[in-house]
Amino acid sequence: MKRTDFTDMFCPIARSLGRVGEWWSILILREAMYGATRFDEFEKNLKIAPNMLARRLSDLVAAGLLERRQYCARPPRFEYVLTEAGAAFQPVLLAFVKWGNDYFSPEGPSVLLVDRTSGQPVSPLLVDEHTGIPLTQDNVKFVAGPGASDSMTLRLIEAARRSDALRAAPMADIEAGR
Amino acid sequence: MKRTDFTDMFCPIARSLGRVGEWWSILILREAMYGATRFDEFEKNLKIAPNMLARRLSDLVAAGLLERRQYCARPPRFEYVLTEAGAAFQPVLLAFVKWGNDYFSPEGPSVLLVDRTSGQPVSPLLVDEHTGIPLTQDNVKFVAGPGASDSMTLRLIEAARRSDALRAAPMADIEAGR
Repeated sequence: MKRTDFTDMFCPIARSLGRVGEWWSILILREAMYGATRFDEFEKNLKIAPNMLARRLSDLVAAGLLERRQYCARPPRFEYVLTEAGAAFQPVLLAFVKWGNDYFSPEGPSVLLVDRTSGQPVSPLLVDEHTGIPLTQDNVKFVAGPGASDSMTLRLIEAARRSDALRAAPMADIEAGR
Repeated sequence: MKRTDFTDMFCPIARSLGRVGEWWSILILREAMYGATRFDEFEKNLKIAPNMLARRLSDLVAAGLLERRQYCARPPRFEYVLTEAGAAFQPVLLAFVKWGNDYFSPEGPSVLLVDRTSGQPVSPLLVDEHTGIPLTQDNVKFVAGPGASDSMTLRLIEAARRSDALRAAPMADIEAGR
């Protein structure tokens, strides 16, 4: 089966997904955020097959999310360090942590986020940077930006129309064409 | 090759990834946030093969992220609507949008987020719900919660030790054992 290349899609979500490749890549980025830098650390922590790990690391380097750096000349040894773009993936990971803890942790959360200095628990909330207002499905919509293709622009207009309608009238009315 | 079941892992990120299955599932959730509910809408918007779409929709229903609802008796027709857990995936998607726009949109962002009422652009920022302080790699760390396994607890202690050390001393010092 031909694999779809999500990187080519105009949508920033699809592109991001293309960039991180697959789940292992996200877990490798998680390990890097935890402070892992060396091949054997990633291997041990993730219990991932070495050939798969090597492929994923080199994909992440090619995608500009990790930098491969030599830290020892003899024998030559390399470490993998988050680039700026890789470190900027953190909010996505934190949003995943919160979602996983809120909905898929019947035995209680396994990972908590705490303030590094005070040790107090923190709870991630997505707000608008300028106004501080929490972003919800009800108050945010997606519109076409300068980089959108024509078909993407049409899609977003249709999506906005539909989600506005959903909010203006109960579903039954829409179904009945009222 | 045996596929790793991420749902079994204790980490909330891995579990979340297990829940959304693969990239197509995330893009289906994106479409649902845009307001799509019907099979043919998902199919047309995503240009996804019908058998793949059917499988992904039924996985998302089984994972509790979409609800399958009959909206017409004769002929029987069904729609797919976000559950509470499905709708709660929105912050992850918004974090992906921001990351994609910030780093992988050389021609300018294709999707912008705006306030539904005012139309003003919004920029997602992850803050602590209680203090409003932005969450960064420097001020947040991960610690074991009540649902953590013993091995996970050890892993997180080691990760915290390492990331504290990284912040306390330049890498060269750590390498040199200073």
